[in-house]
Amino acid sequence: MKISVPGFLASGVSSGIKEKNKKDLGMLFSEQPATAVGTFTTNKIKAAPVLISKEKMKQKNSQAIIVNSGNANACTGDMGLKDASDLCKLTAQELGISEKLVMVSSTGIIGVTLPMDKMKTNIPHLVNSLSPMGLNDFAEAIMTTDTIPKIVMKKSMIDSKEVTFCGIAKGSGMIMPRMATLLSFIITDLSINPDLLDDVFIEAVNNSFNRITIDGETSTNDMVIMMANGRAANSFFPKESSDYQTFKSSLNALFLDLSKLILKDAEGATKTICILVEEAKSNEEAKKIAYQIANSNLVKTAFFGEDPNWGRILSAIGTVDAEIIPGRIDISFEDVIVVENSISTGMELQAKQILMKKEFRVTINLHIGQGTAEVGTTDLTTEYIKINASYSS
Amino acid sequence: MKISVPGFLASGVSSGIKEKNKKDLGMLFSEQPATAVGTFTTNKIKAAPVLISKEKMKQKNSQAIIVNSGNANACTGDMGLKDASDLCKLTAQELGISEKLVMVSSTGIIGVTLPMDKMKTNIPHLVNSLSPMGLNDFAEAIMTTDTIPKIVMKKSMIDSKEVTFCGIAKGSGMIMPRMATLLSFIITDLSINPDLLDDVFIEAVNNSFNRITIDGETSTNDMVIMMANGRAANSFFPKESSDYQTFKSSLNALFLDLSKLILKDAEGATKTICILVEEAKSNEEAKKIAYQIANSNLVKTAFFGEDPNWGRILSAIGTVDAEIIPGRIDISFEDVIVVENSISTGMELQAKQILMKKEFRVTINLHIGQGTAEVGTTDLTTEYIKINASYSS
Repeated sequence: MKISVPGFLASGVSSGIKEKNKKDLGMLFSEQPATAVGTFTTNKIKAAPVLISKEKMKQKNSQAIIVNSGNANACTGDMGLKDASDLCKLTAQELGISEKLVMVSSTGIIGVTLPMDKMKTNIPHLVNSLSPMGLNDFAEAIMTTDTIPKIVMKKSMIDSKEVTFCGIAKGSGMIMPRMATLLSFIITDLSINPDLLDDVFIEAVNNSFNRITIDGETSTNDMVIMMANGRAANSFFPKESSDYQTFKSSLNALFLDLSKLILKDAEGATKTICILVEEAKSNEEAKKIAYQIANSNLVKTAFFGEDPNWGRILSAIGTVDAEIIPGRIDISFEDVIVVENSISTGMELQAKQILMKKEFRVTINLHIGQGTAEVGTTDLTTEYIKINASYSS
Repeated sequence: MKISVPGFLASGVSSGIKEKNKKDLGMLFSEQPATAVGTFTTNKIKAAPVLISKEKMKQKNSQAIIVNSGNANACTGDMGLKDASDLCKLTAQELGISEKLVMVSSTGIIGVTLPMDKMKTNIPHLVNSLSPMGLNDFAEAIMTTDTIPKIVMKKSMIDSKEVTFCGIAKGSGMIMPRMATLLSFIITDLSINPDLLDDVFIEAVNNSFNRITIDGETSTNDMVIMMANGRAANSFFPKESSDYQTFKSSLNALFLDLSKLILKDAEGATKTICILVEEAKSNEEAKKIAYQIANSNLVKTAFFGEDPNWGRILSAIGTVDAEIIPGRIDISFEDVIVVENSISTGMELQAKQILMKKEFRVTINLHIGQGTAEVGTTDLTTEYIKINASYSS
């Protein structure tokens, strides 16, 4: 499939923030102002680009995004705010558009001011490189510890028009919900009412990025931004129409695919695991329990060791402020029931076969109520420690 | 110092639960019934010995404790309860004391029933081995992934009598507060009112074991039990007397020393770090923030990498539900101030020298109020992953 979206240009260049001429500066540009929505980190310590883009995004309108990797421009004080603002200003000048329409995003090391000289020099080059086929370069320019660029494309028929959706993401650590959990940019040529876009967007984020965890950390820089430029020229559609349903399921599928790519590329991970909690008192309690398991270092190292150590899962469940009956818990690895009524069924050897797979599901049934939740996670490996002990500030 | 406490006998033998003839069954015995208090895991999934000892401990009276390592007798259903109860019964018979006075404790793998035949055979041997000099054997018999036995001795003058305190602990992972956080047994020849003992004991636990974290996990089996047999023949002392103060500071010092031993022997750890949060809104908020930092995988891997990555500390702070002023946070490594008003002071190289030490303190000042808290933690290392990926069930 051709990686492009009608009316959008993109580029990615090396500006010298990262070593070895790696791409570290990227741009997305819509030929016309686009309806835009976004969601931002819930961390109270917010990076300068988050503060600036979050404020601007209230207008639900955007035409360009400039993103750098290698430096988060976080915890950089007033200088950081000025730098982020200057990046918008310079981008707007170079593109000949209003500064209000330019968003800014950064990812990388915290606490170091941006090398603005290098970046300024490269903005004209970045703009001149804009191309309908530039999305791969953009995806590469926003990577940090990611090992692969992450792009997902979908096409749908809406109002008899072909509509294209493209999502690009970076993120392989610091993945944990409480809102936007990474950098992701979704572009589409769909024409849509901004409020409707906002609703569907937030729901899709909650069902995808907000349902995965790698290490329980929430970054200072996370943002997800979506731009819809209307180039497909479909008519606006109302809520609950069949076009609305098509759009909603396309967007959900796109976000799920992106979040799966992130889990698969998790720092040092060798496995992706779906934790499904069933029959909890409420969906909320199911989610709390699923996250406790998904974030437990002992559970995650057992997954790495391919050890069906269900005792660690039960132990994690027991620490959650949620209703359980201690003697009534069932645990399965795929279809192998290893625990019934909180004791072993003796199927550990069969379960070990499941744990040797790259992807598997763990189901926990609490026999309390109707609450259900699903959370994606990874194993915790020696490689994760090596990556994070050497990612120096 | 001679490792013994007047009126107490101890032993430790190998019963074949663990491999290679390692000691795995231990006993503490007081020649006379002792005043006893205990605190138990807050995990909702409680191992059989926790359920049984917790109930018995209500009487505040005990004479013997039988402990095994290598098998937690947790998640073992009715059979587990019967086994734990049988261990008490057999111990009582062999010692010729009331079953009510016998406590039971286990640590090790979850979900496997105890090898009762092996254990039963060895109880007479365990009782016959009891000796005033047996505390080292006992300390060894309760170890799991611990690399060293953990014993601390203190002597104090109370009512002009020499009183001996001896604390023995095991625990090197699964260390996290929310109550008792490991196995620890404290014996003393002090004579004391049971209610007074309970108050001072709980306070000492809260100031020590409940202020350290290794991996944020809370076990199904944690318990701390203290026995005071009165052999020192001191008079009872009232609250706030000078004897009370002496006792209290001795016990606090003993618990702090024990908890430091545990941190030093933390699974795979190379460093112990004290996280001190100052000028938070309240002590409670200071504690929440200190724990968030102390449990952050990214912060702990940065410590392992000897990287003064204060951005990860700020980021961890920002995720806590506590009042902060994002631009007013100071961070120091020992006396090196690396962050002032949430931005770098440029002292990272000096800070790196501090991080190269085996022990150091990180101080966070929030400039909000008078709340303070201190939490001890360790680094997170590749060795931790190796240990926990291979500790098979």
